[in-house]
Amino acid sequence: MTASVIDGKATAATIRQEVARAVERLKAEAGLTPGLAVVLVGEDPASSIYVRNKNKQTVEAGMASFEHKLDEGTSEADLLALIDRLNADPAVNGILVQLPLPKQIDSAKVLAAIDPAKDVDGFHVVNAGRLATGQDALVPCTPLGCVILAKQTLGDLSGLEAVVVGRSNIVGKPVAQLLLQENCTVTIAHSRTKDLAATCRRADILIAAVGRPEMIKGDWVKPGATVIDVGINRIEGEGGKGKIVGDVAYDEAAAVAGHITPVPGGVGPMTIACLLRNTVTAAARQNGLSSPFAG
Amino acid sequence: MTASVIDGKATAATIRQEVARAVERLKAEAGLTPGLAVVLVGEDPASSIYVRNKNKQTVEAGMASFEHKLDEGTSEADLLALIDRLNADPAVNGILVQLPLPKQIDSAKVLAAIDPAKDVDGFHVVNAGRLATGQDALVPCTPLGCVILAKQTLGDLSGLEAVVVGRSNIVGKPVAQLLLQENCTVTIAHSRTKDLAATCRRADILIAAVGRPEMIKGDWVKPGATVIDVGINRIEGEGGKGKIVGDVAYDEAAAVAGHITPVPGGVGPMTIACLLRNTVTAAARQNGLSSPFAG
Ligand SMILES: NC(=O)c1ccc[n+]([C@@H]2O[C@H](COP(=O)([O-])OP(=O)(O)OC[C@H]3O[C@@H](n4cnc5c(N)ncnc54)[C@H](OP(=O)(O)O)[C@@H]3O)[C@@H](O)[C@H]2O)c1
Ligand SMILES: NC(=O)c1ccc[n+]([C@@H]2O[C@H](COP(=O)([O-])OP(=O)(O)OC[C@H]3O[C@@H](n4cnc5c(N)ncnc54)[C@H](OP(=O)(O)O)[C@@H]3O)[C@@H](O)[C@H]2O)c1
Repeated sequence: MTASVIDGKATAATIRQEVARAVERLKAEAGLTPGLAVVLVGEDPASSIYVRNKNKQTVEAGMASFEHKLDEGTSEADLLALIDRLNADPAVNGILVQLPLPKQIDSAKVLAAIDPAKDVDGFHVVNAGRLATGQDALVPCTPLGCVILAKQTLGDLSGLEAVVVGRSNIVGKPVAQLLLQENCTVTIAHSRTKDLAATCRRADILIAAVGRPEMIKGDWVKPGATVIDVGINRIEGEGGKGKIVGDVAYDEAAAVAGHITPVPGGVGPMTIACLLRNTVTAAARQNGLSSPFAG
Repeated sequence: MTASVIDGKATAATIRQEVARAVERLKAEAGLTPGLAVVLVGEDPASSIYVRNKNKQTVEAGMASFEHKLDEGTSEADLLALIDRLNADPAVNGILVQLPLPKQIDSAKVLAAIDPAKDVDGFHVVNAGRLATGQDALVPCTPLGCVILAKQTLGDLSGLEAVVVGRSNIVGKPVAQLLLQENCTVTIAHSRTKDLAATCRRADILIAAVGRPEMIKGDWVKPGATVIDVGINRIEGEGGKGKIVGDVAYDEAAAVAGHITPVPGGVGPMTIACLLRNTVTAAARQNGLSSPFAG
């Protein structure tokens, strides 16, 4: 078998179109322009590029983008004061603080200060609790992207065996919660799992969120399985040039799987698209409307 | 093999002794007497017995017990006003509202009104979020009891395969979170799971929290496994007398398992013991101390 490739770039583009249409409707029907505030402290080059992309895609979807660039030396108190102002500002429906923050600032304290209703990254403890108990939550973007790709590929996920490798708060655990909501039988594996290969081989849906280049081998994949690779690992490529690979040994796995996400071009592009989606969901709910997006 | 029986009654008694000793120390060293407020609305006989037991065991452990019995016709507003007063009262470290509540009262609203720091039932969304993200939480009592029994039986759970059947917010999901924290490889199964027997057969630790009498059969149990049965089901016994059974077909399972909890006398007695433990933990944390209990 040679797996069909799950095109995250195309799906992300479709989501951005859906977001743009939802924004149109909110403007027309509720006089509402969703707004996303992105806060960047310091000059980290990767973060700067990421923030620029978010900003651009927010504007392209018809939303308002508020960029707050603060000096590397900003105090925690000043950042918390900004968060307070953004929490109180009705034009701001979503707040994203770009991580990592400089070391004089306690990230946990800053994330906890964001109004959960505006927490479009879904990292606030209240959103984690809402997700864990099956209430309306703002869901972390990358996990949401993974599950959208799985559903688009397989339709109803009910009764499927899902194995999630990795249990971080930002990927592994929330993706497991979402798959459970979709009625999968969910296994969470991690560095203490005894026979990881055998555990992975049970999976109809295998989610890799480990951060170890090409760790998951072809013979760990059940024939026909759907493989979603969250990993983004920079390794030495040919001729000393850097190269990005996932957590799955792609060529081997693609020879066995039914469907597989490439890296790059799989889960990666879904993250910002889901951020825009979350911003629209947040704007709608803050105004007493339900999210315009299904599932 | 004939399983050894896990004696929940004895373990619960040990926990109550540990709680009593911790209370002694808090009194001596911090001048602090932990207090638990239990709120009962109406006259439901089962609830009344349960509340009386909690009250008695709280006092026996050296803590203060505050019973609030409200009329069946109490309004939601009056109950919320009481919760506010208990939230503000420094002598009250834990608040428990006995469920079910009469139908004029929205239980979710009442539970959400409890200060998360005093939420000794662990049902508040903030505690669910803290548990889900690995922060200090007040953990639901029955799940905590299950994991204490498993650890007491097996020692370090790291790397063991745990299967949880059931995914309710009050049992299945929190017990899965706790087992993941103990470094088990955790599978969550439920009514949509395709081959439940095969899934259960993988388990080194099998937790049954389904609410279906004797559903889990002997040949679903891996030889030597530890079986923790949360179910409390009232069925017709011999001569028309009522009888309590678990979710596991006990005799069959005990012939295969290494260790098994009986029903009654297994998980059941652990719940109130863990409630007392949570009250002491809450009292300590509210006063800037850490929980006196390990793990
Ligand atoms: N937009 C995106 O596409 C996006 C977003 C976020 C992250 N990512 C990528 O996704 C990957 C995971 O990110 P993360 O933040 O979740 O990472 P993380 O916080 O480092 O968590 C990694 C998880 O993998 C587990 N693990 C590590 N080594 C393992 C091994 N040998 N066998 C089994 N499990 C192992 C760890 O287990 P223990 O808990 O036992 O240590 C941990 O739970 C990274 O490559 C990251 O770059 C991509
Ligand atoms: N102190 C104690 O010892 C204590 C405390 C609390 C509860 N309990 C007992 O524990 C049991 C569970 O309580 P709960 O509140 O968690 O119950 P619940 O809210 O009714 O949840 C039951 C769970 O079992 C699953 N389930 C139902 N039928 C199933 C089937 N045929 N196959 C597989 N899974 C099935 C359901 O799946 P779906 O989600 O797919 O519907 C659901 O997740 C009850 O017997 C209760 O009395 C005891």
